[in-house]
Amino acid sequence: MFSLTVSPRFYETDAFGHVNNTVVPGWFEAAREPIFRIFCPDMDIKKMNLILARIEVDFVAQIYYGSEVELKTGIEKIGNSSFTVVQEAYQGGKLVARGRAVQVYFDHELQKSGPVPEVYRAQLAEQLIKA
Amino acid sequence: MFSLTVSPRFYETDAFGHVNNTVVPGWFEAAREPIFRIFCPDMDIKKMNLILARIEVDFVAQIYYGSEVELKTGIEKIGNSSFTVVQEAYQGGKLVARGRAVQVYFDHELQKSGPVPEVYRAQLAEQLIKA
Amino acid sequence: MFSLTVSPRFYETDAFGHVNNTVVPGWFEAAREPIFRIFCPDMDIKKMNLILARIEVDFVAQIYYGSEVELKTGIEKIGNSSFTVVQEAYQGGKLVARGRAVQVYFDHELQKSGPVPEVYRAQLAEQLIKA
Amino acid sequence: MFSLTVSPRFYETDAFGHVNNTVVPGWFEAAREPIFRIFCPDMDIKKMNLILARIEVDFVAQIYYGSEVELKTGIEKIGNSSFTVVQEAYQGGKLVARGRAVQVYFDHELQKSGPVPEVYRAQLAEQLIKA
Repeated sequence: MFSLTVSPRFYETDAFGHVNNTVVPGWFEAAREPIFRIFCPDMDIKKMNLILARIEVDFVAQIYYGSEVELKTGIEKIGNSSFTVVQEAYQGGKLVARGRAVQVYFDHELQKSGPVPEVYRAQLAEQLIKA
Repeated sequence: MFSLTVSPRFYETDAFGHVNNTVVPGWFEAAREPIFRIFCPDMDIKKMNLILARIEVDFVAQIYYGSEVELKTGIEKIGNSSFTVVQEAYQGGKLVARGRAVQVYFDHELQKSGPVPEVYRAQLAEQLIKA
Repeated sequence: MFSLTVSPRFYETDAFGHVNNTVVPGWFEAAREPIFRIFCPDMDIKKMNLILARIEVDFVAQIYYGSEVELKTGIEKIGNSSFTVVQEAYQGGKLVARGRAVQVYFDHELQKSGPVPEVYRAQLAEQLIKA
Repeated sequence: MFSLTVSPRFYETDAFGHVNNTVVPGWFEAAREPIFRIFCPDMDIKKMNLILARIEVDFVAQIYYGSEVELKTGIEKIGNSSFTVVQEAYQGGKLVARGRAVQVYFDHELQKSGPVPEVYRAQLAEQLIKA
């Protein structure tokens, strides 16, 4: 699985005193960057051929300011024109959030979604999570 | 259903030229404010007895800068200690995103979740969506 | 002066229980939208010929969740190739923040800053604040 | 000077294709964390006795997605009840933004600002920038 460590930023907390829930989808997007790089190695964003179709997040425990969070990212399933990313956030070794993101391959020339090309599919397969 | 209209802010766009996906959970949180007011009429956030357990968002279409977005919020299901909020975002009359949020009643005295009290349950029931 | 009213969003609060300071530059950007429209009436952002060179914000008083904030925006000074925007935030009729933004006219054809064309200058002048 | 390295997140870009200007005050807040720790070593935010009075940011050059940004933070001036933080952002070794933050010492018992206690003053002095 890919791993990214973030330090909660003070502005990411809310009046309950913890990290606000709406911050987690942003962290998970940041943690999917190695997947973006598979589809767009030079990070020229204009050429990025991925669309985000759906996210899910389960908020498992409070996330605190002042201690690092590790984000783990793997691939759960590779379909024809889409694939499902699974993501987990850990703080102090404890699972605090879990998420999924469904990314769809988008062909800019045809201006529609299409089958994920084999070259990308192989690299995604390396990150497949064992069930 | 509750309704809130927002104007996409420029900083909410991303390099693809549209509103970034991670912005939508924040809009939906803002659109749940009438529900927060049911549980916390004086908006003294310290007394808020709701926890967010889960969100789901389906990104149906691009959301553009320069035109208002209407957010509709209703209740899909009222369980024993939790309830499910359904939310939709429309731009130019077209559905652009759809979401769910599972909120859990949290009793601060007992420091654990518990049954949603009848007084709140009745107000939530008024916002129930017909299946 | 241009006016925009925003409702603080819960995720915009921080662990101190008020709206986080870093939120205010975003609100002020949103409140400058009528100025962006002067330079880019169709809001086709690719054609926007303005660059932000500098911001200043004075945080005058706490900004609370649960009550609207009015943002007022005017022009303080029009220079040769730049102009200075002044902005104020009021909550409950009380000044809570004050800011400045220096915007520079940027000529995309020449790929450099240049004199603000007369057509825009006239519209900016209508929003000049009396000293 | 304190140093913090951040990777621009995709949601921090805007429709111009670069990191949005309103993101920088948030990065600079994150980069002031070592200063927050001086005043609040256990990071129990409720006890934090600092208020932010003012920020300034000069946007010197575009900030791009896909490459790290180093944030440097030092102390410019220590006054009686306030001190001025200077901050710089570098990408690829090039200065891209520069800022100041004026922080005021706030005595919670007296509920007003007051002289910065000597114990903090000494630690701030270690970070003073040579003019």
